Amino acid sequence: MTRISDLPTPALIVDRQKFDGNVAKMAAVRPGLSLRPHIKAHKSTTLAAQLAAVGHTAFTCATPREVIGMAQAGLGTDLLLANETVDVSRLRAMAAMLNTRSSELVRITVAIDSEITASLAAENGIKDVLIDVNVGMPRCGIAPERAAALASYAVSLGLNVRGVMGYEGHLMAVADRDEQRVKVRSAMGVLVQCFDDVRLVSGNDCTIISAGGTGTFDLYDPSDPVLARVNEVQAGSYALMDSHYGNLDLPFEQALYVVGTVISVSDSWAVIDVGLKSLGMDHGNPTIAGASVWFCSDEHITFSMKDGQPLPNVGDRVLVQPAHIDPTIALHETMHIADQIPAIGVQSGENGNGGKEVGGKVVGGKVIDAWPVNLRHW
Amino acid sequence: MTRISDLPTPALIVDRQKFDGNVAKMAAVRPGLSLRPHIKAHKSTTLAAQLAAVGHTAFTCATPREVIGMAQAGLGTDLLLANETVDVSRLRAMAAMLNTRSSELVRITVAIDSEITASLAAENGIKDVLIDVNVGMPRCGIAPERAAALASYAVSLGLNVRGVMGYEGHLMAVADRDEQRVKVRSAMGVLVQCFDDVRLVSGNDCTIISAGGTGTFDLYDPSDPVLARVNEVQAGSYALMDSHYGNLDLPFEQALYVVGTVISVSDSWAVIDVGLKSLGMDHGNPTIAGASVWFCSDEHITFSMKDGQPLPNVGDRVLVQPAHIDPTIALHETMHIADQIPAIGVQSGENGNGGKEVGGKVVGGKVIDAWPVNLRHW
Repeated sequence: MTRISDLPTPALIVDRQKFDGNVAKMAAVRPGLSLRPHIKAHKSTTLAAQLAAVGHTAFTCATPREVIGMAQAGLGTDLLLANETVDVSRLRAMAAMLNTRSSELVRITVAIDSEITASLAAENGIKDVLIDVNVGMPRCGIAPERAAALASYAVSLGLNVRGVMGYEGHLMAVADRDEQRVKVRSAMGVLVQCFDDVRLVSGNDCTIISAGGTGTFDLYDPSDPVLARVNEVQAGSYALMDSHYGNLDLPFEQALYVVGTVISVSDSWAVIDVGLKSLGMDHGNPTIAGASVWFCSDEHITFSMKDGQPLPNVGDRVLVQPAHIDPTIALHETMHIADQIPAIGVQSGENGNGGKEVGGKVVGGKVIDAWPVNLRHW
Repeated sequence: MTRISDLPTPALIVDRQKFDGNVAKMAAVRPGLSLRPHIKAHKSTTLAAQLAAVGHTAFTCATPREVIGMAQAGLGTDLLLANETVDVSRLRAMAAMLNTRSSELVRITVAIDSEITASLAAENGIKDVLIDVNVGMPRCGIAPERAAALASYAVSLGLNVRGVMGYEGHLMAVADRDEQRVKVRSAMGVLVQCFDDVRLVSGNDCTIISAGGTGTFDLYDPSDPVLARVNEVQAGSYALMDSHYGNLDLPFEQALYVVGTVISVSDSWAVIDVGLKSLGMDHGNPTIAGASVWFCSDEHITFSMKDGQPLPNVGDRVLVQPAHIDPTIALHETMHIADQIPAIGVQSGENGNGGKEVGGKVVGGKVIDAWPVNLRHW
């Protein structure tokens, strides 16, 4: 039996029970195709297959590499590239996936927000598109008043317009949920109006209104005439969560850690082999339960213990909670799936489950599986 | 001929002329073995081979993976793991490299800062060690007053103590060079005293005093009785530089960029396909010459232009300067080596070198080589 303490570090570990709990909580609110899980958070076809198994068989991707890898893994029945690309080679590579299996098995829809993204999609073999609408966040997406014209243009090129998407990413982290609800409704009002305009110039297959994320997953109130029309939510982080989203009032639990090994201990601090190259740092420092993180270096975290707790020993394992899971996972090749992860951050043989020797201390947590992070890069 | 605009993006590119200039400037101040270049900044044996070609044939590594990869690439005549490890498998894997070639071709020295790191090194086949001394930065390194005792212990285990190292990392970014010089001299006074103590209990092969980095490379004044005794500098970032070090008064030029493609343009901003998964973010946002970076998302940067300059067009290429190169490079598989990189950040066909079409605009900069980032992970 492999335990967490047997893993070479730094290593990503996923708490199986928390992952399963997160998946179940989401599926209860957004079952089946009402959720289009985002792949970018974890970039793993093995994880995606777990979501397909509970009914979420349509997926959202951020890169052509994700789209192609999902199709190759047999998870391509309804893939959305929720992003623009003008890369002719990659457009063709995605289009090639449509021809390698029967059309029932692979469907690829690409977001467009300009005439050039539409024409490149059409010229390079893409059949299905979604009109990406700017609903308030300054990133991709066409201005709402121009959405219908773009749809007309896409139709004129022979593209099938399946609907609209509008990611209200600027509202994901609004801490006050009532305030968030009001703002999301306003943004979705814009998106729904765009859909109605786009629908007028598109065919009967124009049915999708896709939006949202983990921070807004339960705000598409089925009794609200606007919000009820959002028929897909693009949440991805919910399955593994992170301490950034963890600060919001959401029912999902953090299920992803980076496990490190203590390599040096001084009078007032200890150092583990987890650092900038194993952690996404855009949301700030990671956290260690019971400890104060001093700073991160390329391959190290320096930390001290809170509340007079003793420092760990060299060889002890430490659980690190990354502030942002997406860029953290992108730095690793494998997620190790663990059972019975201990609740505490720093676990030594002495106060843990009965350790034996340095480098081989027993830490609660059986490693029961390994999921490759196989959709990295672009 | 491949041009920068032919590369799939995001892509790392290295300015060959600036890289060569940086290497030459460093070699003039710290020639040959007086520099032990750090591999962690770039994790590329191809880049390391360029440094060996100008005489720097001893290298510094941060991970066992780097040590093993360098040895496998034939660059292992004098490798220092300037970091502690208690991973028995990896210690054995490093030791195995000592036996796969004749001993003149591979030498591996491991930093130790505790009895346990010493004994694990000895038990698992490591022969050479350096006593890692804390010279003021709270990370690894034994307290100076205990360095000689650790050396005695290592000798008692049969280890060959080659000397001391002390990384004054807390002084790398002191902006005032006079203040920095005073502080570095103080830290090196501690290290040199440790060396003298360690030398008394070690053999004649105890000769190394290793310290420093890019931010202090020229402060080991040969006329100063203390500083002159530092006989190795562990600089690594200097070869490619980044905007963090670039803010200091150093002679090295930033030679590494991430090139992106504009995928969306709105009235007041544009978006490129470079984001958190292609940029180390611990030092903050990247910079784009002539532009204001608004924010980074997983796969995007949103930016506007300064000084009333027009926004680029969809399909244009943009050069992004990462704030910290080490974790940036760790996210990529390849560095593309380019000639004649344009000085400006945003390069469109219209104001550039005569573009042809979206997705294929010509941007100054021939791609002349590709260096794999082949020492990633641990």
